[in-house]
Amino acid sequence: MFSQRLERVRTAMGVAGVDVLMLSVGSDLPWLVGYEAMPLERLTMLVLPVDGRAELFVPALEVPRVLERPEIFRVRGWTETEDPVAMVAESVGAAESIAMGDHTWSRFLIQLQDRLPRARWQPAGSILGPLRAVKDAREVERLQAAASGVDRIARALQNGEIPLIGRTEAEVSADLGRRILEVGHGKVNFAIVAAGENAASPHHHPGDRVIEPGEVVLCDFGGTTAEPQGEPGYCSDITRCVYTGEPPAEFVEQYSVLADAQRQAVEAAKPGIAAEEVDRVARDVLAAAGLDQWFIHRLGHGIGVDAHEDPYLVSGNHRPLEAGNAFSIEPGFYIPGKWGARIEDIVVCTDVGPRPLNTVDHALAVVEG
Amino acid sequence: MFSQRLERVRTAMGVAGVDVLMLSVGSDLPWLVGYEAMPLERLTMLVLPVDGRAELFVPALEVPRVLERPEIFRVRGWTETEDPVAMVAESVGAAESIAMGDHTWSRFLIQLQDRLPRARWQPAGSILGPLRAVKDAREVERLQAAASGVDRIARALQNGEIPLIGRTEAEVSADLGRRILEVGHGKVNFAIVAAGENAASPHHHPGDRVIEPGEVVLCDFGGTTAEPQGEPGYCSDITRCVYTGEPPAEFVEQYSVLADAQRQAVEAAKPGIAAEEVDRVARDVLAAAGLDQWFIHRLGHGIGVDAHEDPYLVSGNHRPLEAGNAFSIEPGFYIPGKWGARIEDIVVCTDVGPRPLNTVDHALAVVEG
Repeated sequence: MFSQRLERVRTAMGVAGVDVLMLSVGSDLPWLVGYEAMPLERLTMLVLPVDGRAELFVPALEVPRVLERPEIFRVRGWTETEDPVAMVAESVGAAESIAMGDHTWSRFLIQLQDRLPRARWQPAGSILGPLRAVKDAREVERLQAAASGVDRIARALQNGEIPLIGRTEAEVSADLGRRILEVGHGKVNFAIVAAGENAASPHHHPGDRVIEPGEVVLCDFGGTTAEPQGEPGYCSDITRCVYTGEPPAEFVEQYSVLADAQRQAVEAAKPGIAAEEVDRVARDVLAAAGLDQWFIHRLGHGIGVDAHEDPYLVSGNHRPLEAGNAFSIEPGFYIPGKWGARIEDIVVCTDVGPRPLNTVDHALAVVEG
Repeated sequence: MFSQRLERVRTAMGVAGVDVLMLSVGSDLPWLVGYEAMPLERLTMLVLPVDGRAELFVPALEVPRVLERPEIFRVRGWTETEDPVAMVAESVGAAESIAMGDHTWSRFLIQLQDRLPRARWQPAGSILGPLRAVKDAREVERLQAAASGVDRIARALQNGEIPLIGRTEAEVSADLGRRILEVGHGKVNFAIVAAGENAASPHHHPGDRVIEPGEVVLCDFGGTTAEPQGEPGYCSDITRCVYTGEPPAEFVEQYSVLADAQRQAVEAAKPGIAAEEVDRVARDVLAAAGLDQWFIHRLGHGIGVDAHEDPYLVSGNHRPLEAGNAFSIEPGFYIPGKWGARIEDIVVCTDVGPRPLNTVDHALAVVEG
């Protein structure tokens, strides 16, 4: 698997005229070689020439964490009194066109730029993004496992098995976090819980607000699956809303338009359609009901080893969807001071049509507890 | 508090000849203005001119998360179809000397470099690191609260209240993680559990290995305190080892040298001593017993809003300690294939001498469960 990816990356580097690819923290590295850099001040860096052997520079005390893959890279531990930036620069040598991992700390890029004054730099995402956006069968299987895990939690939420009324948003968020770990994830990425008027803030930070009867509770949560050492985890991401008691007719009506917008966008997500067109489909449905003014974010994002990656379903992204793309479809409406709602599933684009990985009911569940 | 920090930063920028400071993801931003950027692909960036008003560029859908501080910065939300890099570059204007936040994604730095071809770049850490390294009274109080929290967990570990034998490292790690959240942290940063020969890997990733009777269990764990919105959390970090049954004489002897090295290093950590000298003190004690060859990492790291920050207690860091510095003192020995041990406390350097924030017993606890 990793050898195949390496070949695809080298081919893309050749096409782009890139001499060396460098990867540090973030998910490109585990996707490509199965090792995740610790996000700390000690530099971890893969140096991958378009031809020639790759070298993985790792702090000596982290070398035992590396599952070695000699056919793919050579491990080079650096000790506490060595200068890893100098070692990496030496490994790069005279290469002039360098693609740097998108999430690499600027501090290391600036230090490398000082040592390699003739180099030209570009973000590695332009090469890796399109490759990572097309999932293979195993990746889809892991994304399905991740989705099935959070589906169980969403069903528990709809069934009233997760107490809401009288608890704070933060308490419910912590509860969701524990459940995310119980259903096969190794890491919680986020667990947004937004009640009432807080649901009008799409990225609300759950706080001390107590959930009361008669309001919407928006829950958007996901994690990264736990995998054997040397294999990257894959992400889940789902949003469902429940109402603590009977919802007012106005909300029911708006929510029903939202569900329609979400469904139509999912149906549109077939190979060949431009990413922005899928966003447009949902936006048009909301617009017909006067709700598009409250839909203040893009329709969705790709998902894989990263919670957010290519392709982005957003106005301006003309790129057509391809079979193997996996992404969220998550329209919402957010009315400041009043309420908000969002429905989100992960969907895989396939040759036989869109395949939603999340299968939890879209109807607005009414919970009494 | 934030206004004072801003003044100190502007003064340091003036001394360093820096026109503009830019901060994105990482802990510099919450330290300086109380807001933490979401580590996602939508750019958050503070643009702070050496004189003139600071601007905080935030994705429009995250604007409600910002606790506004108009006296410190102006919030500028950007919508999904705007180009935040262009907006930031325009805000920077003709400035030529720019300090970029150490953890800012390289992708954004490269995009800004393309738009600002005349600018000279340096890592912001050279300006902010020394300022952040000197804690004020409130910061020491928060670090003490964080340390007292994990102290309770370490005592439970030593008292045998946390079952070890028969559980996997990963299970014990998850248990420590839950406890970290219970004692006042909002986030778990790490919970290393390394049994037997795995304790010889300083950054061991806890796995499926079952803990057995008659072996060392090294536990190194910490989190970030939960604070009110708009205030940054502070980090804890502690390491204790226990033995599941009576330890062999050889281990007891080595451990006793380690405890001596740790104690002497703590006592040496007074204002004026070079950071590397404190490392040297511990290394010399271990060397006298022939153990220094197995002490393969630096003695310690600063701690605050970041789990690792200035000052680093490492050979080559000639900078003298100052009152207000807070750092770990964590010597260890790691004998491959056999066992390892580490003792770690957080210590604050004060004018009246070193003040350990962790006060849990250093003796090797023997646990039976």
